[in-house]
Amino acid sequence: MKELMDKITKSGHVLGEEVLKVDSFITHQIDPELMEKIGTRFSEVFSEAGITKVVTIESSGIAPALFAARKLQVPMVFARKSKSLTMDEELLTSSVYSFTKQVTSKISISRKFLNEKDNVLIIDDFLANGQAAKGLIELCQQAGANVDGIGIVIEKSFQEGRHLLEEMGIKVVSLARVTSLENGAVHFDQADA
Amino acid sequence: MKELMDKITKSGHVLGEEVLKVDSFITHQIDPELMEKIGTRFSEVFSEAGITKVVTIESSGIAPALFAARKLQVPMVFARKSKSLTMDEELLTSSVYSFTKQVTSKISISRKFLNEKDNVLIIDDFLANGQAAKGLIELCQQAGANVDGIGIVIEKSFQEGRHLLEEMGIKVVSLARVTSLENGAVHFDQADA
Repeated sequence: MKELMDKITKSGHVLGEEVLKVDSFITHQIDPELMEKIGTRFSEVFSEAGITKVVTIESSGIAPALFAARKLQVPMVFARKSKSLTMDEELLTSSVYSFTKQVTSKISISRKFLNEKDNVLIIDDFLANGQAAKGLIELCQQAGANVDGIGIVIEKSFQEGRHLLEEMGIKVVSLARVTSLENGAVHFDQADA
Repeated sequence: MKELMDKITKSGHVLGEEVLKVDSFITHQIDPELMEKIGTRFSEVFSEAGITKVVTIESSGIAPALFAARKLQVPMVFARKSKSLTMDEELLTSSVYSFTKQVTSKISISRKFLNEKDNVLIIDDFLANGQAAKGLIELCQQAGANVDGIGIVIEKSFQEGRHLLEEMGIKVVSLARVTSLENGAVHFDQADA
């Protein structure tokens, strides 16, 4: 997605060789117009897939997932990283290790919001080591739901995530594929959409 | 907002006299179409206010804030409840006590995303004791920004939040005002919009 890659080049910040900071338009401050275009692009790619639900994880995945779900005219569910007092019913749970935060989180979705009739599109803002996506896939599998594919806003192609997910047989659609952050610059491969 | 109140009556769950659970369309699973209408309503109420930024707090505030910001054509910023490793710059911070989770959280926004020229619309999903809203107001004040008003999806009018905020001189616009959850039923006052 050219507009996204241009925005990353213009407004992203490279912090070392592994961290790309996009907090001015994706992960902290959000550009709603760009985000709507991102959601729309995902909806176009998966328009014929018969998606019944979009699933993401709080917090940065919510915005792109919400616009994708709006365009696909299906509900969106976001996994929570900690159990709240009012989530008292049966939960689907899995564990996710974050290399950024260096902690393992339990993530969960209420069982009542995913079932074996669902055909799920998972959306997330970043794909790096694939741990969050893997955790979300596990939640869907616990519910007996099918994961039709994964839509990623920014893929760090120099990390293991895509390989891990493709080995699981999951279709990965990334709107920006970053091949390297060497010398303080963002280098892209051709995007999937 | 009649459509919202009808949805709460139909799909909300009353848990005791203080807890209204709306996890099937607002706080966990999200109905994107209804959420877009909610964001649009906020944008209509504040269309003449010269809003420069919509501010909310993760995670349930993100969806209504995002659609409001989209319609107002301004950026949205969400406060984070914990510091991530890549939020290394100067932060605006305040403390929020959650009666639901019985914990005090530090919330923060990067200073670079709020300044004294900003005229802010704060959006949140619930107003109960007003602690989250108060924390967000404090972040705006630290930045020297003006808070033009607060848009709330569901106000629990039998709790202290609105009173607290109005005493601070803040305009509160709630799309559903719940006066009581007695006898397992949701009772509404007239909404602000």
